[in-house]
Amino acid sequence: MIAEIISVGTELLLGQIVNTNAAFIARELAAVGINAYHQSVVGDNRQKLIDVIKIAEERSDLLIFTGGLGPTQDDITKETIASYLNEPLALDSDGLAHIRNYFEKTGREMTANNEKQAVYFKNGLAFKNMNGHALGSYIKKEETAYVVLPGPPNELKEMVQSELMPFLLAEINSDRHYILSKTLRFYGIGESTLASRLAPLIDGQTNPTLAPYAGSHEVSLRITASGKDADDCNQLLEQMVKDVLVSVGDYYYGEGEQNSLANVVGQLLTSKGMTISAAESLTGGLFQSTLVSIPKSSQFFKGGMVAYDEAIKRNGLGISQQLLDEQGTVSEACAIAMSEACRQFFQTDIAISFTGVAGPDDLENQPAGTVWIGISQAGKEPFAKQYRFMKDRNGNRQHAVMQGLDLIRRLVAE
Amino acid sequence: MIAEIISVGTELLLGQIVNTNAAFIARELAAVGINAYHQSVVGDNRQKLIDVIKIAEERSDLLIFTGGLGPTQDDITKETIASYLNEPLALDSDGLAHIRNYFEKTGREMTANNEKQAVYFKNGLAFKNMNGHALGSYIKKEETAYVVLPGPPNELKEMVQSELMPFLLAEINSDRHYILSKTLRFYGIGESTLASRLAPLIDGQTNPTLAPYAGSHEVSLRITASGKDADDCNQLLEQMVKDVLVSVGDYYYGEGEQNSLANVVGQLLTSKGMTISAAESLTGGLFQSTLVSIPKSSQFFKGGMVAYDEAIKRNGLGISQQLLDEQGTVSEACAIAMSEACRQFFQTDIAISFTGVAGPDDLENQPAGTVWIGISQAGKEPFAKQYRFMKDRNGNRQHAVMQGLDLIRRLVAE
Repeated sequence: MIAEIISVGTELLLGQIVNTNAAFIARELAAVGINAYHQSVVGDNRQKLIDVIKIAEERSDLLIFTGGLGPTQDDITKETIASYLNEPLALDSDGLAHIRNYFEKTGREMTANNEKQAVYFKNGLAFKNMNGHALGSYIKKEETAYVVLPGPPNELKEMVQSELMPFLLAEINSDRHYILSKTLRFYGIGESTLASRLAPLIDGQTNPTLAPYAGSHEVSLRITASGKDADDCNQLLEQMVKDVLVSVGDYYYGEGEQNSLANVVGQLLTSKGMTISAAESLTGGLFQSTLVSIPKSSQFFKGGMVAYDEAIKRNGLGISQQLLDEQGTVSEACAIAMSEACRQFFQTDIAISFTGVAGPDDLENQPAGTVWIGISQAGKEPFAKQYRFMKDRNGNRQHAVMQGLDLIRRLVAE
Repeated sequence: MIAEIISVGTELLLGQIVNTNAAFIARELAAVGINAYHQSVVGDNRQKLIDVIKIAEERSDLLIFTGGLGPTQDDITKETIASYLNEPLALDSDGLAHIRNYFEKTGREMTANNEKQAVYFKNGLAFKNMNGHALGSYIKKEETAYVVLPGPPNELKEMVQSELMPFLLAEINSDRHYILSKTLRFYGIGESTLASRLAPLIDGQTNPTLAPYAGSHEVSLRITASGKDADDCNQLLEQMVKDVLVSVGDYYYGEGEQNSLANVVGQLLTSKGMTISAAESLTGGLFQSTLVSIPKSSQFFKGGMVAYDEAIKRNGLGISQQLLDEQGTVSEACAIAMSEACRQFFQTDIAISFTGVAGPDDLENQPAGTVWIGISQAGKEPFAKQYRFMKDRNGNRQHAVMQGLDLIRRLVAE
C-alpha cells in the first residue's frame, strides 16, 4: 500500500499555518510500515483539488485528505471527492446527534451548515470525531482508497489514532490489526547516540518498529507493535522495552507521550511525601515554574526565592559577604550555601539551587554556560555539581533546569 | 507568475520534521503578491523528483525547491534538476572560498563532498548562503524558472529574504524591486478583532500588504512595502503604520519580529532606571523567568519570591493569618499585601504579585482562571486588578504573566 497525504486549505498556501498534520500522519504511517512517497497541498478550489486527485491516483493507492470539512462554503473536500467519484454522501445519525448535543449543551444555535459536517461516503465508512463536529470518512473505489480527515490538529490526531490506523492495519493485515505504542523518554543522551546504541534493534525490527525523536533537551523513543489483540501487542512491547533498557536504561526516566521529567519528579516526591523548594539565580524562576506547571504541584512544591541580584543572595538568603567576595556567586560554595539557606527559609525536605552564567556575556571570568547546581537535603551532606552547557542564554537556562530535575529524580528514586 | 514550492527530503515523508520552510516561503511570496497554488513534498529520489518537476511545470512557472543541497550522496536536488534540464553546474569561487574559510577557522578537515555545495546553474545565478555552506541557485529555461534553496530553516530564511525575494521582485516589477517589512506587535486584542478593525486597510491595499498573525497570547501584524529603494519603502511603511495605529494603537506595544512584551518592559524600566521584584503564587516563577530570559535583565530585575504554599505567603512574605483567613489567598487584599511585602523585602521601585487559580480544579470557591495581579510602587497607592482567563492551567499562567507585563508597561510608560 502506497499512501499520499493531500492537505487542503488556502491558509496553508498563504503560509498562515504550518502543515503539522502532514508530519503527524506521516509518522503514524511510517510506524506501521506504510510507505508514503508524496505529500501535496492544494487550496480550497474544486478543479485544482480534482487535478491533484488525478495525479495522486497515478502514483499512490491510499489518498489521505485533511482539511476542508468545516461548515462553510469554502469547505468542499468531501463534496468534491464524492462528486468526482460519483459516489453519494449520506448523513450519519450518530454524528448528527453528536453535533446537536453540542449545540444544545452550549446553548448556541445550530445552523443548517453544521449538518453537512455529519456526512460520509454512503458506500464507505464514517470515522467518529471525538474532539469536534466533522466526521471523517473512507471509501474504496476500484484500486484506490480515499480517506478524508478534519483539519484542526486535535481533531485529526485523535481520529487518526482511534479510527484510521486500526482500520488501515486491519486492511493490510487481517491477522495484525491491533496497534499499541509506547513512548519511552530519556534525559542526558542525544538522539544520534541513542539511535546508534539501539542500531541493532532498530535495523532488525519490523514489528515492533522503533522511532527516536529529539525533543528540547531530551529524546523520546516510540515503539509501535501490531498484533491480533492487545495482549499480543503488549507482549511484543514488553520484550522490546526490556531490550531497549539494557542498552540505554541509565538515561530512561519514564514513559508516555505526554510525560515529562518534571512530572516524574513530582510523582516521586509526592509518593515519598517529600517537599521541595528552590533558590534560583540564572534560571530566574524557571525551575519553580516548571514544577508549578504540573497539576497538584502544591503537594510537593512549597515555594522559593529568585535571588538574581547579589544583594538578594546576601540579604534575602543570608549568604555571607565574605563567601561572595572570596568564592564569587558562580561557585560550589555559593551553590551549596544557597541550597542550605533555601531549605531553612522555606522549611522543606529538599532544596535545590542554581547559580551560573546564562550568557551571552561571561561573568566573574567564567564562560557563558557555566552552571553550579546545589542540593541540600535534611540529614545529609549538601553538595553541588558543575556543568557547562553550550547553548544560548535561554537554552542554557532550560538545560540547567532539566539537569536539576534529573539530579532530584536520581536522588529521590534511590 | 504562479509559484510552486517543492520540498525535497525523505525525513519530511517520514514525519521526522515538520515542513516549516514551505509555510515560510509561502508567507514571503504572499507578502509581495505572488500566487502559489501548490506545495509538494518528495523524497531524496531522482526519478520521483523528476516526475514531480514534470507535473509542476504543467501548472506553475516558478518552481522553488528546498532541501537536498547537503554534502552527502543523498543530496541530489541540484544535480537532478541540472541533468533533467540538461544544464551545466559550475563551481562558484566566492562560495567555495566561504566554505574553505569555515573549515580553516574551525580547524576541521574539508572533504571533496563539501565542494559540491558551492555549485550553481552555470547559465543562471548563485544565491549566497550567509548561515551555511550550500549555495542557492536560479535558472530560467523556456517559460519556467527554477530556484533551489537549502533545507536548514535558518539558512533558507536568510537566503529567501536577502537574495531570492529582492531578485523575484526585480523580475516581476523592475520599478519596485526593493522590499522592506515592519512587524507591529499587539497585546490585549485577538487576531480576528484586529483583522476586522483593520479590514478597510487590509482589503484595499496591494502595497504595502498587511498580514496579521496570532502568536501565543498576542498578535503581530506584518506590513510589507515594495518600492524602488529603501526611502520609497520606508515612506510607504511609515504612512501605513500611522493608519494602523489610529485604529488599534491602544493595543500596540512595540515593533520587530524578534521583539516581545517582556523585552519592551525591560527597556522601559532600564531607560527610567527603575527596578522590579515579584511575588508569585499561581505563576510559580514564570513572570520572573520571563524577565530573566532577556539579556542584561540584571539592570532592572533584582529577584523575588515564589510563595506557592499559604505558609510561605505567611512566613516568607509576612501576610497576616487574619487576612488569609478572612479574605482568602485569591483576593484583592492578598494580592496587594503580597506586592507591598515583596517591594519591602527586595527593596525595588516596583513590585508585582500574582495570586489566583491556575486550574484545572477550582480553589476557595473561585473558578479556575481567576487571577488577581497586585502592584506596589514607591510613593503611590498599591492596587490590584482581577482577571478571568479561560485557558487550561498553563495557558492561564502564561496569560497572567503577559497581563502583568502589560500592566507594568502601561504604568512605566506613563
